[in-house]
Amino acid sequence: MHPEIDTDMAKELKDLTKRSENYSQWYNELVVKADLAEQAPVRGCMVIKPYGYAIWEKIQRTLDDKFKETGHVNAYFPLLIPKSYLSREAEHVEGFAKECAVVTHYRLKNAEDGSGVIVDPAAKLEEELIVRPTSETIIWATYKNWIKSYRDLPILCNQWANVMRWEMRPRLFLRTAEFLWQEGHTAHATREEAEQEARRMQQVYADFVEGYMAVPVVRGVKSETERFAGALDTYTIESMTQDGKALQCGTSHFLGQNFAKAFDVQFINKENKLEYVWATSWGVSTRLMGALIMAHSDDNGLVLPPKLAPIQVVIVPIYKNTDDLAQISAKVDILVEALKKKGISVKYDDADNKRPGFKFADYEVKGVPVRVALGMRDLEAGTCEIMRRDTLEKETVPFDGLEELIPNMLDDMQTAIFEKAKAWRDARMVEVNSYDEFKEKIEAGYFVLAHWDGTAETEAKIKEETKATIRCLPFGMKEEPGTDVYSGKPAARRVLFARSY
Amino acid sequence: MHPEIDTDMAKELKDLTKRSENYSQWYNELVVKADLAEQAPVRGCMVIKPYGYAIWEKIQRTLDDKFKETGHVNAYFPLLIPKSYLSREAEHVEGFAKECAVVTHYRLKNAEDGSGVIVDPAAKLEEELIVRPTSETIIWATYKNWIKSYRDLPILCNQWANVMRWEMRPRLFLRTAEFLWQEGHTAHATREEAEQEARRMQQVYADFVEGYMAVPVVRGVKSETERFAGALDTYTIESMTQDGKALQCGTSHFLGQNFAKAFDVQFINKENKLEYVWATSWGVSTRLMGALIMAHSDDNGLVLPPKLAPIQVVIVPIYKNTDDLAQISAKVDILVEALKKKGISVKYDDADNKRPGFKFADYEVKGVPVRVALGMRDLEAGTCEIMRRDTLEKETVPFDGLEELIPNMLDDMQTAIFEKAKAWRDARMVEVNSYDEFKEKIEAGYFVLAHWDGTAETEAKIKEETKATIRCLPFGMKEEPGTDVYSGKPAARRVLFARSY
Repeated sequence: MHPEIDTDMAKELKDLTKRSENYSQWYNELVVKADLAEQAPVRGCMVIKPYGYAIWEKIQRTLDDKFKETGHVNAYFPLLIPKSYLSREAEHVEGFAKECAVVTHYRLKNAEDGSGVIVDPAAKLEEELIVRPTSETIIWATYKNWIKSYRDLPILCNQWANVMRWEMRPRLFLRTAEFLWQEGHTAHATREEAEQEARRMQQVYADFVEGYMAVPVVRGVKSETERFAGALDTYTIESMTQDGKALQCGTSHFLGQNFAKAFDVQFINKENKLEYVWATSWGVSTRLMGALIMAHSDDNGLVLPPKLAPIQVVIVPIYKNTDDLAQISAKVDILVEALKKKGISVKYDDADNKRPGFKFADYEVKGVPVRVALGMRDLEAGTCEIMRRDTLEKETVPFDGLEELIPNMLDDMQTAIFEKAKAWRDARMVEVNSYDEFKEKIEAGYFVLAHWDGTAETEAKIKEETKATIRCLPFGMKEEPGTDVYSGKPAARRVLFARSY
Repeated sequence: MHPEIDTDMAKELKDLTKRSENYSQWYNELVVKADLAEQAPVRGCMVIKPYGYAIWEKIQRTLDDKFKETGHVNAYFPLLIPKSYLSREAEHVEGFAKECAVVTHYRLKNAEDGSGVIVDPAAKLEEELIVRPTSETIIWATYKNWIKSYRDLPILCNQWANVMRWEMRPRLFLRTAEFLWQEGHTAHATREEAEQEARRMQQVYADFVEGYMAVPVVRGVKSETERFAGALDTYTIESMTQDGKALQCGTSHFLGQNFAKAFDVQFINKENKLEYVWATSWGVSTRLMGALIMAHSDDNGLVLPPKLAPIQVVIVPIYKNTDDLAQISAKVDILVEALKKKGISVKYDDADNKRPGFKFADYEVKGVPVRVALGMRDLEAGTCEIMRRDTLEKETVPFDGLEELIPNMLDDMQTAIFEKAKAWRDARMVEVNSYDEFKEKIEAGYFVLAHWDGTAETEAKIKEETKATIRCLPFGMKEEPGTDVYSGKPAARRVLFARSY
């Protein structure tokens, strides 16, 4: 229809900053160009656009199934939390009070000068309410009424919700004032059971991020400094971005009896004695979208793992007139049906108001895993052109074999992008034994495994001097004693340092 | 284990106020006893408990599929709305400003006297933010950037979200300060298309409420007084509760160009002229839970339509020892598998810490549609006892036929409760021709079809004197002219009056 406009748009879509030039800008542009999200008119908040939300829905649906398989149920707790609740757990309030949206009034009224609406001073709340930054406090205030005896335990609740933390340096998906997440909150009769739960959910997260997002993660436990405010232990999974930074993908907290004590939640145990309840909480958020975007995408746009792509296959007809289109469509319709039967999400884009070149560019930026193009010459030859998004390799293949070829290609791609990300991450995870080497590798964007003396002082000094933090004490590593790279003091084991998002 | 406790609990579960004694109290008690929801510690807010949330998830999943079938996509817009946005549309602000939660600060700090945390006066927002009572304003501020040409239209977005409206007389599910809902917001190039969309979504809602919730509704359009603030037309579906009141189950609004004008959203139409965009919005909320509970439930507890019941069938073994249980379980396990294969949600409750009597009472209160009980004598005879929740009829039937019997019973029950509700509603919907009859029927809990002169004055007078409002101008009725029952003036048609929740 408007070939010149289409060409301009195709160019603009392609006109993405290169990762090697400015990784950060590449990310910001990509989020917008791929139609995932945009800045909202409200400071620090985002609008998640339909294409971005479709990916989030797939993440949500998959995780929700996994939570249910592991015995969890969903529930919903209030958005607003009385201010005093936050103060009940001493460390928790230190961690969260600084970044809260505070509701002080419950009514507006017309300004007397007719200039609009103003806050009605008569509608001031007796106690201010906080927009939840996380829900431990309101949930434990509620659990108090649910738990009397060991027979009421365990409680295994999860909630899908929005939360707010006032962010000074917001960034789409990675750090926004409001974000979407799930938060699991469980209550147990014993310490062992709660610790097991916290570790189990870390494993569920790791399996999801590696198996669906195709993003390799390091599993471990946080240092005391980096722990969730109010937790005894925070288990984490950390991924690596293409600029060599760590991205915390999900955390699972063993909360001990801290919140039970803060909200006086006791139960009668099997020995008929009163005891405080043991707790965990665990969450992942729309931040996962950031991890996903950063992990596989390239200078041409988004690369999505097939398992989470809203559109897995797009088919673009190339034609001159409606007769041509009718012939192509007759053939494509059968393929579309066959693929749908196999559970593959396929889009046949026969819209006539955009040219194939524009469509190609658009689906490339949006990271559709497989693209099939089909013109009149193909029709005669019984072929088509197929392209895989991760490698950008085009092939001419027989049309009739697509029904088998496409599912295999999707599987291959899912595996290939995970292997690629893993090989790259593994190559950039190194052991260092001196502070000079430490600084050099951190500067170059590496995950650094170094001996640490276990003190918060050393941790703070290293952070101050290198901007690297302890991402975790990784699991599954030989714990060989050594010498702290910074202080020279004895160190029980190596820990993982990196700069992070 | 504790037979005496179980008996007490069973009695307590059963100890529900009768509908005939106090319908309102019956409802309040039932919501709590069936474990659906409870008051939150925050005024006017609720905690939706896992069993209640499981029903809401079924509602959500079903509706979401229907929205997608009709071409809609999901997205997410910010929770907080700048105060000034509300004032942009004159009627909208009148309708919503009165009941808003207002965020004025973004930080807390430690009180100097160590008494806890206080609002940090230094962290006052330049412009206050409103917790969304509905999202037309923030969405149209966003659409402004999405829409340039007719080629960008239609936009068919839906959002699943929480919203807040400060309620003076809160009631679980029916009126809570915070509630969950979906809100569709669509943008169109023509008036006709937008009007069609608004009516189409009313139909989607009606089909869902009748087809899944088994609740008959009257479809119609609101009077000007009862319209959504900012709409040109509000289409509604109204159900009848067992105490003869109307319950607005869902609304769909044709917004004309009001919001497009307020947020200056114009597009270049096919004739290359600038034009304001046409809009609709439509929503249903956790209020549907209230409609569902009120429609079918009885003095023994909840009655759920099989299509929305989280557990459709419960099987309770009756046994004396683990040998008995093993024999029963061997048989039941095969049935459970067979039912699951048919997509039926079944629970085999072999928990040994509760007695069958308690389980029976609990599942009855919770409205599980079909209950199967099976003891050793049944095992020998090849029978079992089956009970249908709506009729409470028990039958002894051959165990081997259950695989066919149960799906049929669920289907029958789905139809039967709809028919029952419809017959009852139809019997309580009457035409009246005098004001005395009008008052009498309203007082007795009827839906009254009466002639109305079309003026807001008459509408207001009737409301003042009888507490009845115009629920809608119903569709599908002969529009015969007549005389207004109140004013005696000429009236074009009958409209539907009722008291309402």
